[in-house]
Amino acid sequence: MVALFYLMNLILLFPKDIIPGTGRVRLTGRRQAHVLEIHRACLGDRLVVGMENGKTGQGCVTRLTSDELEMDVVFNAAPPPKIPVVLCVAMMRPIVFKRVLQTAAAMGVEAVHVFHSRQVEKSFWQSTALQPEEVFEQLVLGLEQAKDTVVPSVSFHKQFKPFVEDALPGLLVGRQGVVADPSGAVLLPERSPKVLIIGPEGGFIPYEIEKFSEAGCIVFGLGPRILRVETAVTSLLSLLS
Amino acid sequence: MVALFYLMNLILLFPKDIIPGTGRVRLTGRRQAHVLEIHRACLGDRLVVGMENGKTGQGCVTRLTSDELEMDVVFNAAPPPKIPVVLCVAMMRPIVFKRVLQTAAAMGVEAVHVFHSRQVEKSFWQSTALQPEEVFEQLVLGLEQAKDTVVPSVSFHKQFKPFVEDALPGLLVGRQGVVADPSGAVLLPERSPKVLIIGPEGGFIPYEIEKFSEAGCIVFGLGPRILRVETAVTSLLSLLS
Repeated sequence: MVALFYLMNLILLFPKDIIPGTGRVRLTGRRQAHVLEIHRACLGDRLVVGMENGKTGQGCVTRLTSDELEMDVVFNAAPPPKIPVVLCVAMMRPIVFKRVLQTAAAMGVEAVHVFHSRQVEKSFWQSTALQPEEVFEQLVLGLEQAKDTVVPSVSFHKQFKPFVEDALPGLLVGRQGVVADPSGAVLLPERSPKVLIIGPEGGFIPYEIEKFSEAGCIVFGLGPRILRVETAVTSLLSLLS
Repeated sequence: MVALFYLMNLILLFPKDIIPGTGRVRLTGRRQAHVLEIHRACLGDRLVVGMENGKTGQGCVTRLTSDELEMDVVFNAAPPPKIPVVLCVAMMRPIVFKRVLQTAAAMGVEAVHVFHSRQVEKSFWQSTALQPEEVFEQLVLGLEQAKDTVVPSVSFHKQFKPFVEDALPGLLVGRQGVVADPSGAVLLPERSPKVLIIGPEGGFIPYEIEKFSEAGCIVFGLGPRILRVETAVTSLLSLLS
């Protein structure tokens, strides 16, 4: 139900929505309810649509009942470009994690890596919010908000050392790693492809900062104010995009 | 209870916390519980404190029981500087409003003005979240997060026209008004004192944009992605601070 509160600025469609042999889609459930109750659409209305990982376009409502929506669709425009940032963020409380996934998708991040860090509560890793269908739902809400169609990848790294030693070097090819930490000097990194690394609410421990430095990352600070993880994510993505 | 999830990076103190005739404070309730359960403080531990609208400093725990905390306190540092932005934002859903208040306080906004706009649901104005003590609570959570002590002002303007014609001109003295709207060209305003104006999820109507322009504001866009209000607030405050 919560999804009904969001403004769905684009209705994200999936291949399975297509009625075979037609240029038409049929929707039920959340998307149909949203169009009916929030858009208050009528027959003939045009809505912004997009095909998963494909183009955006328009849908023209050809049938709308209390539980089904049909539209003729055309796809004729590219989705907005992604921003040149890979987001690596320490695991967080499930409710915050959901909002960060939505924000990352909405702001145009291509890939999200979620990793363990000493000051992350181990119980966070047990949350149902990590299940693929739950992750996908949050990403879709973010894409619909921002009129994007291209689903970002989300990877989990439940151990710090394999993340920093084995996964991170590959991400850093052609991209500068930047680590947000109160220990860093304040510095606004110039806009170029980045791997943005954000720690847990309690911060990184010195060993972790050392490992990031060894991997070639720059440690920078955010000034005297300590921001919550979700605020820091939005703030830094804005500054780097 | 929800407050216990926040990292209280500074314990905000109020004159009423001072035990008369001593350099000592006594806390009960939320702050005492936070220190006990989250900081897991012990006798002699030093905690970061700040006096409401005053200096920051340290508290040394001199007594800690299951329902009371006493600290010797010294105040010796200035709180972080505010950012040169007055935030004007159309009224939003109460749960979003709470988060926006916290974020504005955490990011160092001096003054928040909340105004009515055509596409704001009238019911939002009935929310208990607008009550002074509720507003104050969210501001304090934001200040504690960001180690600030200076409580921003929050003003409500339940009618659009009096806001834009009578209140806004005073805010614009010495500050450039900038209105975020999809109708604007993408443009990153340079960093100088600003009045940042953000509309409701459904956007401003053309009449409203016209009134802002008449008042001397610049309308700018955020690019092809439409962001949620709370994401836009954080994003734009970062870019302007």
